[in-house]
Amino acid sequence: MHRAALYRQLAPATWHGPGLSPANRGICLLILFASLVAVLETEPTLRRLAPKTFSILEMGLVTIFVLEYGLRLYAAGENPRYRGIVGRIRYVFTFWALVDLIAILPFFLGFLSFNNAFLLRLLRILRMLRLARLGRFSSAWSALADALSSRIHELLLSVGVAALLLLFSSACLYVVEAAGQPEAFGSVPRALWWSIATLTTVGYGDVTPVTTLGKLFAGLTAVAGIGIIAMPTGILAAAFSDAFQNKHKTPGEREWNDPTT
Amino acid sequence: MHRAALYRQLAPATWHGPGLSPANRGICLLILFASLVAVLETEPTLRRLAPKTFSILEMGLVTIFVLEYGLRLYAAGENPRYRGIVGRIRYVFTFWALVDLIAILPFFLGFLSFNNAFLLRLLRILRMLRLARLGRFSSAWSALADALSSRIHELLLSVGVAALLLLFSSACLYVVEAAGQPEAFGSVPRALWWSIATLTTVGYGDVTPVTTLGKLFAGLTAVAGIGIIAMPTGILAAAFSDAFQNKHKTPGEREWNDPTT
Amino acid sequence: MHRAALYRQLAPATWHGPGLSPANRGICLLILFASLVAVLETEPTLRRLAPKTFSILEMGLVTIFVLEYGLRLYAAGENPRYRGIVGRIRYVFTFWALVDLIAILPFFLGFLSFNNAFLLRLLRILRMLRLARLGRFSSAWSALADALSSRIHELLLSVGVAALLLLFSSACLYVVEAAGQPEAFGSVPRALWWSIATLTTVGYGDVTPVTTLGKLFAGLTAVAGIGIIAMPTGILAAAFSDAFQNKHKTPGEREWNDPTT
Amino acid sequence: MHRAALYRQLAPATWHGPGLSPANRGICLLILFASLVAVLETEPTLRRLAPKTFSILEMGLVTIFVLEYGLRLYAAGENPRYRGIVGRIRYVFTFWALVDLIAILPFFLGFLSFNNAFLLRLLRILRMLRLARLGRFSSAWSALADALSSRIHELLLSVGVAALLLLFSSACLYVVEAAGQPEAFGSVPRALWWSIATLTTVGYGDVTPVTTLGKLFAGLTAVAGIGIIAMPTGILAAAFSDAFQNKHKTPGEREWNDPTT
Repeated sequence: MHRAALYRQLAPATWHGPGLSPANRGICLLILFASLVAVLETEPTLRRLAPKTFSILEMGLVTIFVLEYGLRLYAAGENPRYRGIVGRIRYVFTFWALVDLIAILPFFLGFLSFNNAFLLRLLRILRMLRLARLGRFSSAWSALADALSSRIHELLLSVGVAALLLLFSSACLYVVEAAGQPEAFGSVPRALWWSIATLTTVGYGDVTPVTTLGKLFAGLTAVAGIGIIAMPTGILAAAFSDAFQNKHKTPGEREWNDPTT
Repeated sequence: MHRAALYRQLAPATWHGPGLSPANRGICLLILFASLVAVLETEPTLRRLAPKTFSILEMGLVTIFVLEYGLRLYAAGENPRYRGIVGRIRYVFTFWALVDLIAILPFFLGFLSFNNAFLLRLLRILRMLRLARLGRFSSAWSALADALSSRIHELLLSVGVAALLLLFSSACLYVVEAAGQPEAFGSVPRALWWSIATLTTVGYGDVTPVTTLGKLFAGLTAVAGIGIIAMPTGILAAAFSDAFQNKHKTPGEREWNDPTT
Repeated sequence: MHRAALYRQLAPATWHGPGLSPANRGICLLILFASLVAVLETEPTLRRLAPKTFSILEMGLVTIFVLEYGLRLYAAGENPRYRGIVGRIRYVFTFWALVDLIAILPFFLGFLSFNNAFLLRLLRILRMLRLARLGRFSSAWSALADALSSRIHELLLSVGVAALLLLFSSACLYVVEAAGQPEAFGSVPRALWWSIATLTTVGYGDVTPVTTLGKLFAGLTAVAGIGIIAMPTGILAAAFSDAFQNKHKTPGEREWNDPTT
Repeated sequence: MHRAALYRQLAPATWHGPGLSPANRGICLLILFASLVAVLETEPTLRRLAPKTFSILEMGLVTIFVLEYGLRLYAAGENPRYRGIVGRIRYVFTFWALVDLIAILPFFLGFLSFNNAFLLRLLRILRMLRLARLGRFSSAWSALADALSSRIHELLLSVGVAALLLLFSSACLYVVEAAGQPEAFGSVPRALWWSIATLTTVGYGDVTPVTTLGKLFAGLTAVAGIGIIAMPTGILAAAFSDAFQNKHKTPGEREWNDPTT
């Protein structure tokens, strides 16, 4: 295959058809499959059931990804910026090339033997970072980021209000509940756990106030939690509504979230 | 009764009055009643209380539905496409005729004797599929589907973001909580149960992190959960707002959710 | 005091100043106070603390409300429709006059002696119905009802979708969890309790699935719950947005939620 | 340094560059740091770890804040309204000067010895009031207040509806559940704790109804809770949408939430 044809297959921006090229579509599916394998490998019952299968699958997938990395490096020469050895070194340090490299590395770290269970778990999880590679193929992310960044001031302000409410309700509960439940409300940082579960309306119920005054403050916190949900939702609804209407009025503009652009 | 009059009574699109024809209105009520009977039959105390009533009711309802099916098959001849025996066979394989048939079948499966309690429960539940028949009489479904499908890219993107957050928070909790609570956080798939309860702000509280680091990640997950609720809500609000305003501006267009169209 | 002046004080629509007349403002405060008394009276520790206070307060409040009822009946003669004895009888059967009467009745029922604790509690609660009298003084209710009724089709549709999801998730959990937890999932009606807590994202956690398949269905239910919250919120947001913008464009129209109209 | 230069550094409105002046930026960071110290000081394990560090940090921070207060008092003379001794006294009683003073006071209260643990906790929490000083530097607060106050009628109405639902569901649960669970549902005020947790969809699960009728009312309350979340969210979404569109149409108006104005 010619290098130019390979380049068109691998670089999403150079593909003229709708969506992704066949090669990139295959790579996306492989990344999703590899992530699924990484998720399932963390389950001890599955590891015990088929101890060999996972290491064979892992080896096969990494071989493909190393091959893909090599082909990308070779095809990058089509772009004048990455021509020659100096250009290739420059390519290796581009954002997505680094992401590709980092996605391969955890496999090789696996040859080191870890006695620490925590590090072993961390290593297994690192394999899921492959999912980040999907970002290369998606222009939708940037459209989403545009919508969010247009209202970043308002969203940050509501985060600030939420943080103040969080601190304030933790402080109130600390003052009235610390005597009865020192483990859960013995300090403001400890009370934060209850406070965040209440303000986000998650409400685990593992820690709840028992005094009347504590329940009163908790009720006010829960009501404030509705505001904490309503504000960002309202801001996002307004931002999306704005974006949709701009699209209607100015059809010449860049399409919203169109994955082919 | 003439076949033409019967056809007008049974086919929703041929009825010229507002809403549904008297015959179809009766069928809708019978479907709702039959579904209620199917729901109540699952309750063992009610089954013990009136062991005969349910089977008699069931038999009566199925008799009516079989009769209705026969009448629909006969009346279908009014439509040139379904004339003659070949036309009737073609009618039997249309979408809604198949739904009508499937809604009757579970009754006849009931004559087989099941020793397996799981299959018996599954069979009882299949009777509730009759509710799907209501879809034939409702144009509102398609209007709803229109509104959702106009923003399907944005909604799928927020589902994708939610899936990534789900995986990411499960992975974090797995790393820090697996040692202390292997049953609940011993693998990424196990941690998903906690993660989904937190991100959707359901928060059962049957499983909660106990380490400080785990609580920190859990708090971040709960805050992210607000975003998971805010994004689709904002997108839907913008889509509905858009649809309502288009309706205002172009009164000649098809009415939104008008059940008579 | 002249009957005409009394009528202007008591009938909200005839008061020309901003807001409510001094007499009606006082009555509103009394209604709120009487409701607070009724709420606090249900608490046994408070009843034991001051057994006399509540009955004296209650008697005083009812005396005022009976007096108010008499004055309203007398002043109603200012309106040509309610003149004379026949007119007064017609007034007694108007909606708000009936509400006023019903708000007084529970006091007189209190003279009957109840041995049944349930009926006694029900009687205490009936006193809170006085709050309904506030509706007479608020035009905001009708504005709210307008906004909701303009999108009633869409809201009913989302209620219908919610009901189907509720039934469907209950049925799934019944099939897979009935064997292990017959008390909580032994029938579809029993599973509804879990299902409603999950779909509304309340998540008490008193009942949770334990099998893997049950947890899978529960996760899907929780995700569907986000849609259940997002749909009515989106519809309401669009309806309010519509209403606000119509107000901007047509300043001559009736003011939105203005309590003085 | 000239008094005029100092005044420009300290008074946010007189600074001509974008954002805050270097001096005010430093003060903001110090306030955040001092609040963090106050939060961490409530944790007994940290107090035991470094008993001296906290009092030294506290003393240093207060010294800086006292110095800042003095400099603000001195620089206020640049403003004709606060010139001379009479003007300075007038300055001391301005809103933000009082906030600055109140933020310093808790430190000096710390020299009094408290034997009461509750008062001691309250005193520690008072130090967090320093955060209120940040309000001086943020024009975003007023923009947020504008948006909220433009829809205050609608928001108050939804608070009223929420309060009525809260009372109504508490009353229902009190009637049907008081017999079985007198501790949790023995009076309307007691049932409020369950009711608020359900209506805000927090759902701790520490108190749940056990009777069939109680579960039915609880289910209806949970569904009503969705409305309680949807209404303010819808109102806020519409208000923000309105505000964003006005900004688009009239570019000459004051910028929305722009911290530099």
